[in-house]
Amino acid sequence: MTLILSRCPADDGYRMPGEFEDHDGCWMIWPERTDNWRMGAKLAEKAFTAVAEAISRFEMVTMCVSGRQFVNARNRLPEQVRVIEMSNNDSWMRDVGPTFVINDQGRMRLVDWNFNAWGGLDEGLYFPWDQDDLIPRKIAEITGVDRYKAPLVMEGGSIHVDGEGTLITTEECLLNPNRNPDLSREQIEDHLKRYLNLKKIIWLPRGCYNDETDGHVDNLCCFSRPGEVILNWTDDQDDPQFPISKEAFEILRDASDVRGRNLKVHKLHQPKPVIISAEECQGVDLVEGSIPRQVGDRLAASYVNFYIANGGLVMPLFGDPQDQPAMDKMRELFPEREIVGVFAREILLGGGNIHCITQQQPKT
Amino acid sequence: MTLILSRCPADDGYRMPGEFEDHDGCWMIWPERTDNWRMGAKLAEKAFTAVAEAISRFEMVTMCVSGRQFVNARNRLPEQVRVIEMSNNDSWMRDVGPTFVINDQGRMRLVDWNFNAWGGLDEGLYFPWDQDDLIPRKIAEITGVDRYKAPLVMEGGSIHVDGEGTLITTEECLLNPNRNPDLSREQIEDHLKRYLNLKKIIWLPRGCYNDETDGHVDNLCCFSRPGEVILNWTDDQDDPQFPISKEAFEILRDASDVRGRNLKVHKLHQPKPVIISAEECQGVDLVEGSIPRQVGDRLAASYVNFYIANGGLVMPLFGDPQDQPAMDKMRELFPEREIVGVFAREILLGGGNIHCITQQQPKT
Repeated sequence: MTLILSRCPADDGYRMPGEFEDHDGCWMIWPERTDNWRMGAKLAEKAFTAVAEAISRFEMVTMCVSGRQFVNARNRLPEQVRVIEMSNNDSWMRDVGPTFVINDQGRMRLVDWNFNAWGGLDEGLYFPWDQDDLIPRKIAEITGVDRYKAPLVMEGGSIHVDGEGTLITTEECLLNPNRNPDLSREQIEDHLKRYLNLKKIIWLPRGCYNDETDGHVDNLCCFSRPGEVILNWTDDQDDPQFPISKEAFEILRDASDVRGRNLKVHKLHQPKPVIISAEECQGVDLVEGSIPRQVGDRLAASYVNFYIANGGLVMPLFGDPQDQPAMDKMRELFPEREIVGVFAREILLGGGNIHCITQQQPKT
Repeated sequence: MTLILSRCPADDGYRMPGEFEDHDGCWMIWPERTDNWRMGAKLAEKAFTAVAEAISRFEMVTMCVSGRQFVNARNRLPEQVRVIEMSNNDSWMRDVGPTFVINDQGRMRLVDWNFNAWGGLDEGLYFPWDQDDLIPRKIAEITGVDRYKAPLVMEGGSIHVDGEGTLITTEECLLNPNRNPDLSREQIEDHLKRYLNLKKIIWLPRGCYNDETDGHVDNLCCFSRPGEVILNWTDDQDDPQFPISKEAFEILRDASDVRGRNLKVHKLHQPKPVIISAEECQGVDLVEGSIPRQVGDRLAASYVNFYIANGGLVMPLFGDPQDQPAMDKMRELFPEREIVGVFAREILLGGGNIHCITQQQPKT
C-alpha cells in the first residue's frame, strides 16, 4: 500500500471521525507480556476476551496476536472475533495503532504516528517498542489502505476529537519533553491540525492522577457527541484527582469548539481509589526495565475509559458502589446505545482500560 | 471464522476450480530459512520478488512473511504487492496453503489439509512444521472465509484439477506410507472426492526424477484447460526422466476425464539436466535435519511448474536452449494469455519452482 510522505490528510480532504460515528470494526491486541500482565497473562486474557466479546455484539472485532499466542487466542476467543497474527510489544492498540481518516467519498486512509512506549528511554514504560511501531504499517497492508507517515510521537489515547474539527488533549502528555522535545507547542498543534484535519485544539493541563501514560486525555475526558464532553469527576476535595478534574472542568466549561459552541460538560464520578493488593503484585515477572507494581499503589481508575461501538458502548466496571450510578449516567447520555459493563480491574492493573486496548475503524 | 468438521465441500456444493479459471489473487510466502536458501536467502528473495512482481501485473499478490523479515520484505517488494505477517517454517505456499473452494453463488470457503513437511519424521524435509500447518487457518481469518478441516495429509502440489470433477495425482506421493499410512487408496480417493468435489481421479505412478517432494504431480503434469494436459517430456531415452514421462504419457493418452473426453496431451520438453554447483552448495547453513545439497546432484527442473494468472502465465526459465521453445509452446497453448518467463534456478535450488511457491485464490 502506498506510503504518503509529502502530503497530509488535511491536504487531501481526509478527517478523523468522532468515535461515536459509525464503525466498520474494532482492532485489539492480545495481552501477552508476563512482566506486565500477572499470572502468565491468563487473567488479562479473560478480561480482553470479555471486552472483545462485548464489542463483537455490535461490530466486527479483529484481535491481533503474536505467532506464539495465535492458537491460544483463537481457541479462547468467540468464533465471531477475527484473529490475525501480528507481532507486538504489548497490547495497547489505542496507543500503538493507526488513526483512521476518511473523506466525503467514504474512502479511508490511515495515519501512522511515531511511537516510543510513552516516553522512550526517558521514563518510557518498556524497551524495545519496535514491533509496536510497525503495527499501523501492518494494518495498512491488511486493510488495503494508503498510509500517511506523521512526523510526531503521539499515542491515540492522548487525543479525542469531535469529528468536526475540534480536538482535546493534555499538556502533560503532548508537551512532555519525552515525546517531541524538538517541537514547540505551535509545531505540535500544526501537525495535529494537518494530520487530523482540525481547526481547534483545547488543551487541558493534566490527565488523571497517577496515570502512567503521562496523562492521556482518554482516561479523563472524551466527546459523547459534538458539543458535549464527559469528564472524570470526584466530589472529594481531599482526593488528588479533585484539583485535576476541577481545573479541567473550568477550562472545558469556558471553551468553545470549532463551531463556536460552548461545550456542555457531563461529570462522571470516579470509583473509590483502586489500590494494588499484595497478591496482584506477586504474579508479574520480575525483570529490569518494566514499571514495577508496588503494593498500595493507586491505579488511575476512571469510567471515562470506555469504547463506543455501533449502537453500543462498552465501559469498565470496578466492583465499586459507583458502578451502577456510572452505568445509569451513561444510559442517560447515550440513550440510543446499549450500555455494556465489563469488570476491568485486570486491564487497569496492566496500566490502562477499555479505551486504551481498542481502536475503531470508521465506516466507509 | 467457522471451522466445519462434520461436513465437506461436496456436501455443500463447493468445488475446487481449475487454476485457469479467474482469480481474486495469489498467495506466497517470503523465503527465509538459511539452511535451505543459500547466501542468507538473499538470492531467493530476489527470485521470489521477480515472481511476485510478474504475477502482480495480472492479479493481486499477497506475500506472507515472518515478523523477523516483515520490514525487509516490505521494502524489497513492489508497492502493489500486499505484505502480511505470518509465521512459517518455509516458503512453499502451494503445499502448506489452503485449497480454496467456491460454489455456484460465488461464495468461497477453504480446505485445510494436514501438513507434515513432505513425509513427517519418515523422510520429511524438515522439523518442525507447526507454523506451516497453521497457515490455512490464518488465511481463513484474513479472508474471512469458513474452513473445512480435511482428515488427510496432503500438499497442494500433489494434485491438479480441471475444475469439472477430474483430478490428476501420483501414487508415489499420495500413496506414500509417509503421508497417510492408515488410509487405503480407496479411502484417500474418497477424501479427495469429498473435499474437492470430484468424480474422477487419474493416478500416475511417479513424479519427476529426483523430485524431493516424493513426486508431486505439479512438476510433471497439469491441466491447461478441461480436456487438455501439459506433460514434462524428454526425447532422450537415456535420461531417467524418459521412462517416467513415457509411462505418464501412455496413461494420460488412454485416460478419459469426468465428462468422458479423452485427454489431449501436450508434451513440453524439459531443459538439460540442472546440476548443483560447488558454489551453490556452499552458501547454505550446515545444520542437522535439513536435506543436504550435494555438488553434482540433479535438480528436478521442469517448465510445467508454472503459475496461471488472470490473463497471464508466469513460467520458470533456466538459461537453457529449451527456454525459448518452451515459451513458444506455452504461447501456442495459451494464446489468450501473456507468457512471462522468470529465471528460476534459485527457486529450484531450494527444492521447487514457481507453482510450488504460489497458491491461487479464485474469484468470487
